Amino acid sequence: MCDALSSRERIRFEFLNVNCSKGEHKLQPFLSKNPFGKIPVFEDGPLTLFESRAITRYIAHKYKDIGTDLFRHGNIQEAAMVGVWIEVESQHFNPPSFAIIYEMFVGPLFGHTIDQSVVNMNIAKLDKVRDVYEARLSTFKYLACDSFSLADLHHLPNIYYLMKITPCADLINSRAHVKAWWEDISARPSFVKVAQGLTLGE
Amino acid sequence: MCDALSSRERIRFEFLNVNCSKGEHKLQPFLSKNPFGKIPVFEDGPLTLFESRAITRYIAHKYKDIGTDLFRHGNIQEAAMVGVWIEVESQHFNPPSFAIIYEMFVGPLFGHTIDQSVVNMNIAKLDKVRDVYEARLSTFKYLACDSFSLADLHHLPNIYYLMKITPCADLINSRAHVKAWWEDISARPSFVKVAQGLTLGE
Repeated sequence: MCDALSSRERIRFEFLNVNCSKGEHKLQPFLSKNPFGKIPVFEDGPLTLFESRAITRYIAHKYKDIGTDLFRHGNIQEAAMVGVWIEVESQHFNPPSFAIIYEMFVGPLFGHTIDQSVVNMNIAKLDKVRDVYEARLSTFKYLACDSFSLADLHHLPNIYYLMKITPCADLINSRAHVKAWWEDISARPSFVKVAQGLTLGE
Repeated sequence: MCDALSSRERIRFEFLNVNCSKGEHKLQPFLSKNPFGKIPVFEDGPLTLFESRAITRYIAHKYKDIGTDLFRHGNIQEAAMVGVWIEVESQHFNPPSFAIIYEMFVGPLFGHTIDQSVVNMNIAKLDKVRDVYEARLSTFKYLACDSFSLADLHHLPNIYYLMKITPCADLINSRAHVKAWWEDISARPSFVKVAQGLTLGE
């Protein structure tokens, strides 16, 4: 989100690690910040937020006048479509993609054996979603409109993991417009920097 | 949403029925409006939206200056908490509650037999979510803050069906603050009017 910001305008933040392998996310004081015991939590002065999509919306609104306008605030129709495609990610893309990532990456970190039938079922679901994206991206450069938005940004972590640690790269690479979109959004300097910190469990 | 509006200010709309039993939602022209083939779709002049939570956000933003301010626009901290609890409904409350409603109500309309193990598993999930709500509602009158918001509104259809057509009413009635909250939000004149149109498949 900081691509277009000068160093003076960059927003300072600090990461505070939660040790999930020790179950810190299921204990106090973490539960007082998120009663569902899930990562992430975001603190901004007196405000404590949880649920990643609520956090990104808050940041996008608070800083709408600096950097990329991730919510297309000046155009009510484009903003409405950002809202639609944020929901598409949440309701259609995330469930099968996260299920694959959990089964192939998160579960094994905790000693679970991969259930290939779960992986296959979710690849089939994701295949249909991907075809809707291909049609959409043959008309618009990005999901909501012809500008990069929060709807695109929300796809970055899951597709990154799908491409790196699962056999699902072909889901992205086999459709020209989806492939071009992924190469575009994953090459943004802000995400390149984020990806350097994704250790893939190492 | 029209409770506080005079008749002059009420927003005109028209329902257009889609015959799902004939599969119209999986055919053109409906698919050109929602490529995922799901109800609802919302049209406002040249704009066509889908995904119910994106539609309600659009309406709440467009009409924020008349009727109830469902997004607490004037208070960035309350607006942020509306965003959080909208996501809680979407990610934590809807999956188990919709699974119960689907299994006990929607599926049988299409001739499916109820799988009681699916119902029981989702009742157990919903039971935990309900306990988080009870704690939250013992501190605030509504989920996001002390004012009714879109976060509360999004719970109306599923809880209505849970109370009417499943054996889950006790999930709501057995916790004092959740029960009082439900009795409050479901008694709003706008929802009383909506509920009169919910035919429960009759």
